[in-house]
Amino acid sequence: MSVALKNDLLLRALLREPVARRPIWLMRQAGRYLPEYRATRAKAGNFLALCTNPQLACEVTLQPIDRYPLDAAILFSDILTIPHAMKLGLEFEGGDGPVFQRPVRCSADIDALGLPDPGSELKYVIDAVALVRRELGGRIPLIGFAGSPWTVATYMVEGGSSKSYSYIKGMMYAAPRDLHRLLELLGKATILYLNAQIAAGAQAVMIFDTWGGILTPRQYQEFSLHYMEQIISSLTREAQGRRVPSIVFTKGGGAWLRKIASIGCDAVGVDWTTDLSAARALVEGRVALQGNLDPAALLAPPERLRAETLRVLDSFGAGPGHVFNLGHGITPGVDPERVALLVDTVRGYVPA
Amino acid sequence: MSVALKNDLLLRALLREPVARRPIWLMRQAGRYLPEYRATRAKAGNFLALCTNPQLACEVTLQPIDRYPLDAAILFSDILTIPHAMKLGLEFEGGDGPVFQRPVRCSADIDALGLPDPGSELKYVIDAVALVRRELGGRIPLIGFAGSPWTVATYMVEGGSSKSYSYIKGMMYAAPRDLHRLLELLGKATILYLNAQIAAGAQAVMIFDTWGGILTPRQYQEFSLHYMEQIISSLTREAQGRRVPSIVFTKGGGAWLRKIASIGCDAVGVDWTTDLSAARALVEGRVALQGNLDPAALLAPPERLRAETLRVLDSFGAGPGHVFNLGHGITPGVDPERVALLVDTVRGYVPA
Repeated sequence: MSVALKNDLLLRALLREPVARRPIWLMRQAGRYLPEYRATRAKAGNFLALCTNPQLACEVTLQPIDRYPLDAAILFSDILTIPHAMKLGLEFEGGDGPVFQRPVRCSADIDALGLPDPGSELKYVIDAVALVRRELGGRIPLIGFAGSPWTVATYMVEGGSSKSYSYIKGMMYAAPRDLHRLLELLGKATILYLNAQIAAGAQAVMIFDTWGGILTPRQYQEFSLHYMEQIISSLTREAQGRRVPSIVFTKGGGAWLRKIASIGCDAVGVDWTTDLSAARALVEGRVALQGNLDPAALLAPPERLRAETLRVLDSFGAGPGHVFNLGHGITPGVDPERVALLVDTVRGYVPA
Repeated sequence: MSVALKNDLLLRALLREPVARRPIWLMRQAGRYLPEYRATRAKAGNFLALCTNPQLACEVTLQPIDRYPLDAAILFSDILTIPHAMKLGLEFEGGDGPVFQRPVRCSADIDALGLPDPGSELKYVIDAVALVRRELGGRIPLIGFAGSPWTVATYMVEGGSSKSYSYIKGMMYAAPRDLHRLLELLGKATILYLNAQIAAGAQAVMIFDTWGGILTPRQYQEFSLHYMEQIISSLTREAQGRRVPSIVFTKGGGAWLRKIASIGCDAVGVDWTTDLSAARALVEGRVALQGNLDPAALLAPPERLRAETLRVLDSFGAGPGHVFNLGHGITPGVDPERVALLVDTVRGYVPA
């Protein structure tokens, strides 16, 4: 396990240390836009079968690494592994949206939830982490991840994806203590889960807060950011003699970047609706930034994609502390050739 | 038509003139949460039949006015009336999402689009405006509205609602001139449409930019705000001897409030993700603000709803220039009694 890391650009950039060039990885880089991913998924039968099989999860994690000279691998998994381990009857309907057969709607539903043990109910994830680390052989670092307690709770309470979030917002307004109990439990589960990923070999970790952006500023602080802060403060700081950087990403959280930067994480993800120059001014050098090309730019003709990519690189400006990424995950319809061009452009970038 | 307006709180607040108390109206105040609305809609057969029938649209517009002491009526209609008039085969499937049978995907599709004449293809809207004005008899003002060109274009190009906006973003990146031609046409159509509403009796107008928030800051300026600015600058300024205030609302546009405030509109809508105190600081007194209670607060128990409402009122602070509203439309599951409580709370508010 202690093979020397050949490419540590990601880890250095996340800690705002000087790097020879900007590192790049892409959210959902292992995904449906890749024909080899679709083949493995077909072999698995369905999305959940793919997630829960360490061999196949490892295979899929490595597919984009074998295709592109990326600077990090991210574990192929899902943000709903924790509620899945809580036995709420997770299914992925029609290959797309998640559905919970037993949504969490009342105090008794919360009482009934257990704290999943990463070593048993989530062993398939931990095994996949170890497997990927071994297969990577020190080429690039592996990022582990989890959903934020708030974001995971939205799926558990709504019973799946939602447009209006009526159930969880109803709970927030009518029974805030119940919601806090649920978030507290999810926070504890996430700490155990991420620390188990780190123990198994994850060299950086990221918290995905996909739905923090639907909250008011006060609610965001109380129901989402607070629990991410608890997690960050309880993470294993070092593994195998090296700092394990943490990244927090709230989609739609552009207005709260300064607050996010103050919870102790090393880096903050930025979606495409905020300019990196503005984001950088807000966080005042306290954290590295990760992002933020509009994922739809991958639908552009090559020259346009190149120009948009350079714009993002330029917008961060000079100095360390930038990890190139999209502002959200790659969409299924993207041509893999475009991703190759994007990676080449970032790797070849020379600041003006 | 020139009956004196008995309650002009809305018009005065939108122009930042002193008012005795904060005016209130609610986005989607005529909607599915009201049993009388559901009855009229059932009578009409479907949503589009309701929109296109001036008598029924007038009936539905007045339902919340008859139930609550609101300070404005807003025309019951839809932001997709213009593309409907462009004969793209609009349908509302399953009573919910709009679907266009003939989406606009290429240059030739745009060439084929005509400029709807409000006096003929959209006569049903203009007739409804005149009817509502007559029925209101000067009790409160009537707000007319339209979707922003960008937002309307998203539905036309995607062919309905969307999660990833791949088609319109693909067009934006691959064929920006085509998209500009479409937005230009929609801008012209919207100017004619809103001015016809004003001529028929609308005493204020609002532009709904529901999907401006999915853009990067540059794209927002170029593809959404620019066209709203063109519309605002071409609106009839005065009708029946009185200024016709304009309101621009971009959902998810919290970061761009200062820019929105500079396009010549009188007021800017604010969603619930931005505090009104912060919004007010950003716009520096150039415009009035409208908003911004989290619509989900209407799901709270009475005392909690009251507290949240007072918080919004307090957050704006002292002085004129605030129109109370939600941060987005009322959701169907809301208890009409909660709306009564909300309206009472705002009407009874005495600043600390």
